Amino acid sequence: MYRSHSCGELRSSAINTEVTLAGWVQKTRDKGFMLWVDLRDRYGVTQLIFDEERTSKDLVEKARTLGREFVIQVKGTVIERESKNPNIPTGEIEILVTELTVLNTALVPPFTIENETDGGEDLRMKYRYLDIRRNPVKQNLIFRHQVTIAVRNYLSDQGFIEIETPYLIKSTPEGARDFLVPSRMNEGQFYALPQSPQTFKQLLMVGGMDKYFQIVKCFRDEDLRADRQPEFTQIDCEMAFVEQEDILDAFEGLTKHLLHKIKGVTVDKFPRLTYDEAMKRFGNDKPDIRFGMEFGELNTVTQHKDFKVFNEAELVVGIAVPGGASYTRKEIDKLIDWVKRPQIGALGMVYVKCNEDGSFKSSVDKFYDQEDLAQWAELTGAKAGDLICVLSGKANKVRAQLSALRMELAERLGLRKKDEFAPLWVVDFPLLEWDEETERYHAMHHPFTSPKPEDIKLLDTDPGKVRANAYDLVLNGNEIGGGSIRIHDKATQSLMFDHLGFTKEEAKAQFGFLMDAFQYGAPPHGGIAFGLDRLVAILGGQETIRDFIAFPKNNSGRDVMIDAPATIDEEQLKELHIKLNL
Amino acid sequence: MYRSHSCGELRSSAINTEVTLAGWVQKTRDKGFMLWVDLRDRYGVTQLIFDEERTSKDLVEKARTLGREFVIQVKGTVIERESKNPNIPTGEIEILVTELTVLNTALVPPFTIENETDGGEDLRMKYRYLDIRRNPVKQNLIFRHQVTIAVRNYLSDQGFIEIETPYLIKSTPEGARDFLVPSRMNEGQFYALPQSPQTFKQLLMVGGMDKYFQIVKCFRDEDLRADRQPEFTQIDCEMAFVEQEDILDAFEGLTKHLLHKIKGVTVDKFPRLTYDEAMKRFGNDKPDIRFGMEFGELNTVTQHKDFKVFNEAELVVGIAVPGGASYTRKEIDKLIDWVKRPQIGALGMVYVKCNEDGSFKSSVDKFYDQEDLAQWAELTGAKAGDLICVLSGKANKVRAQLSALRMELAERLGLRKKDEFAPLWVVDFPLLEWDEETERYHAMHHPFTSPKPEDIKLLDTDPGKVRANAYDLVLNGNEIGGGSIRIHDKATQSLMFDHLGFTKEEAKAQFGFLMDAFQYGAPPHGGIAFGLDRLVAILGGQETIRDFIAFPKNNSGRDVMIDAPATIDEEQLKELHIKLNL
Repeated sequence: MYRSHSCGELRSSAINTEVTLAGWVQKTRDKGFMLWVDLRDRYGVTQLIFDEERTSKDLVEKARTLGREFVIQVKGTVIERESKNPNIPTGEIEILVTELTVLNTALVPPFTIENETDGGEDLRMKYRYLDIRRNPVKQNLIFRHQVTIAVRNYLSDQGFIEIETPYLIKSTPEGARDFLVPSRMNEGQFYALPQSPQTFKQLLMVGGMDKYFQIVKCFRDEDLRADRQPEFTQIDCEMAFVEQEDILDAFEGLTKHLLHKIKGVTVDKFPRLTYDEAMKRFGNDKPDIRFGMEFGELNTVTQHKDFKVFNEAELVVGIAVPGGASYTRKEIDKLIDWVKRPQIGALGMVYVKCNEDGSFKSSVDKFYDQEDLAQWAELTGAKAGDLICVLSGKANKVRAQLSALRMELAERLGLRKKDEFAPLWVVDFPLLEWDEETERYHAMHHPFTSPKPEDIKLLDTDPGKVRANAYDLVLNGNEIGGGSIRIHDKATQSLMFDHLGFTKEEAKAQFGFLMDAFQYGAPPHGGIAFGLDRLVAILGGQETIRDFIAFPKNNSGRDVMIDAPATIDEEQLKELHIKLNL
Repeated sequence: MYRSHSCGELRSSAINTEVTLAGWVQKTRDKGFMLWVDLRDRYGVTQLIFDEERTSKDLVEKARTLGREFVIQVKGTVIERESKNPNIPTGEIEILVTELTVLNTALVPPFTIENETDGGEDLRMKYRYLDIRRNPVKQNLIFRHQVTIAVRNYLSDQGFIEIETPYLIKSTPEGARDFLVPSRMNEGQFYALPQSPQTFKQLLMVGGMDKYFQIVKCFRDEDLRADRQPEFTQIDCEMAFVEQEDILDAFEGLTKHLLHKIKGVTVDKFPRLTYDEAMKRFGNDKPDIRFGMEFGELNTVTQHKDFKVFNEAELVVGIAVPGGASYTRKEIDKLIDWVKRPQIGALGMVYVKCNEDGSFKSSVDKFYDQEDLAQWAELTGAKAGDLICVLSGKANKVRAQLSALRMELAERLGLRKKDEFAPLWVVDFPLLEWDEETERYHAMHHPFTSPKPEDIKLLDTDPGKVRANAYDLVLNGNEIGGGSIRIHDKATQSLMFDHLGFTKEEAKAQFGFLMDAFQYGAPPHGGIAFGLDRLVAILGGQETIRDFIAFPKNNSGRDVMIDAPATIDEEQLKELHIKLNL
């Protein structure tokens, strides 16, 4: 036993107790005849005192040799601290050390192990084991554990069974790129790592398991955007004998439970928006509804004058920025520059200041009079003191642009409050999505998603209009979960593969086992999957998932700490029946 | 909502309630004007009754079209059953059906979906989703979930944090063969799938996480023996600031908790055997101690006569088989044949019948008198009525042979009782193990295992004698967990790599990050890992892990259901910078 107590637990009630502590030297303060050490472990920091008078000179000398991050064990007596530190839980006591053992020395760490560190991202990733010693990182990992076990226990208590599905599966061309694993025993063949356990969870429903979940790693070999990881964790769930309503109910329950248990927040029944409504009101299928600034469509009140830009636009749409009437010309110009950046891509922005006196001042006063602008204000919900920002163009594009502006301004205005949680369901997603590049329809969710029965007849005539029994759970502007009711009969599944451009042979080769299974008594079923990394980050009031992953990879998919991936032996390649092709 | 109740929950208290049930048609019984259906779901079976008189002829006609495994929904009234079935929980009631909806039809399943099925292993694997509908398989999966969540909650309650470590890591030549994953973004380089999170959990200890666990998939690309899977699940644990005793304590606690919670069994403090003792007394480092039949070494009492076989043997060792004196000559000959099978490999077996009258009759009466044989009986603990079986030869081999015989006989005698649990710790394993093939020492556990400090000096002179701070948890003749105190300083770790035949460069290339980490204040630490698949099987009173895995692979590493691994597109190979080498 290296310790009798942790460095986080001793209080004044323990005064005069003999204790043994172990941990890392956070810092030392030397006053000659006395010397203090802050000793840190996972649980906190306790102050040690070495004192020539009360113990021995040798001991103080020995303590003087301690460097930062040395690992030590001390024995001593808990005493009352002279100058108490109300900022830490152990601040009332210190340990008068009588025995010091150095368990391990330490080189000077490449960055400071403090809440705020001087280490850059790259350095901290290379020495991730040191970064984890820092309180914010450590707390994030502990928080992740708390969320995860809360999810597991809630679902288990609701009768869900966690079932492990295989990691070595088969490659399917649909969706993202697979990571592949050459098989040694099956020459010339490859496993794939799962992008999700989708087909397996459906087979579990065919197998009668009824309520399944799994917290599971998934893999996508995609070029990494800022906050994507090649391996990520999903809370994967499926239920049989359910309709959409049952699933929304079940997982609204989970989300409420988490918000309550983890954040102490109680939320009412989640609002529901259809996909169309979300796009219309927020320009986005994952709207942040913690604040207003809803879209006002202005076509009817802008397209009767000589302003060509608006007249030719498919959509003219604006938002009201609270208090924005006070922005200076310079500030507004900056905003216009912001929407014109290539990432946003607007060609320009029209604005209207809603003056406190009820009058309006706009950048298009040449074309629109006060009465016109009053209508704009009404449609965007602008009040005296607000600024109306108006964009125009192709509906899809202009919605995305204005949504970006809305989020940016809300961020600047402090409307995206960390401790406020506004979940909602977005439902009735389109089944198919037109892909400009390949010039064909793709499954918006995945090819197993059930179309709404009443829309199936549109598949041949107007595929883009077919709605799916698909839903997303959105929290604070992030999609944290998404799912659908699945197809559960072979005929519909075949039809769907047809419409997605699969030949019969391709469909059979890739998903024959699933369609076979549907012939042996498949129950109606559906499910949902949550991105755990993001869910944890958002519950933690942050947006970077990397901060909640113990050993993340960088944007080239590298683990810079262990230096992976790496070259391998010729012998290994040979055994796997492959050679390099550089 | 497809159902108001499950098929397992209705009792006579629900009589007269209107209910909706959904599930699979288990079987139908047709009496013309009446027809019964056993309706099955995950939760049980409920009897449905269709009755011309009480409802309608049409309904009975419709019910008559139902085939096995059709998925149906029914509405009806709970009524008292005329002939009650005390064997099932719902046996007092049945449902008088008023409405029948066929949710899905089913082809005739390729084997019967009953507790005892007529389907062979191969067929059941191909249609695993149907096999899962069978009660024994379904219950195994549910049981696995119960064990797993009990483990998680226990460890979490004890302050352990579950932390996910990466799946895409770096290949290391030590140990078993890795599964490899070619990197698209890092040309010519490969990830490896982890054989265990060993180095990551050690880095978490360096990172101060203190008490870590993870229930995690691990991967080994080995030729599959009977009950091995290429992917398997580990309960992986590590603690810092601990000695061996602390770890044994902590995980004895976990094991006791599981036995109590899952099996209702209370066990005392686990016995501990050193490796040497286990080998001497049971010929095995994972002894089943639910029964005796301990080894009696007979060299001293056999090597003074003219029996050359024994005189030339390194070890002469016997066990007493309870009641074996009554075996016929034929039965004993069969036993001798059994030990001479190539899998066991004994050259012969000497036996002694301990007659009820106190006399002995042996196969070597020519060489040994009654007094000699009485000594054998004493050393093997044989009583009147027992049979002493004696093998001889090279110590290692003969121990393995006699251990196999001991287990076989115990099985036949019914001494390996399903519901009895006899855990023990085996400690003081050798650090190194001589490998005949490569003619060098290998790490018996792994290269991170700490030698016992007092034995380090033997590393140069007598490496085989060096004991490790390593331990196994053994339950009913199976190793269910194993672990060690780790090396936590760079110098010792380097020394160990030297002794294992690594060059400095190899050690640095493979494990440089770990040795670097040890320089920045690594605490003393150690851990253990449990094989979840086996643990669950043993707690479930079975020994085949495959029965507790939802989608296992066959002995060629194939998933015969989805037909993986499979060939892939040329395009995919190209993107991964590899080509086939057949």
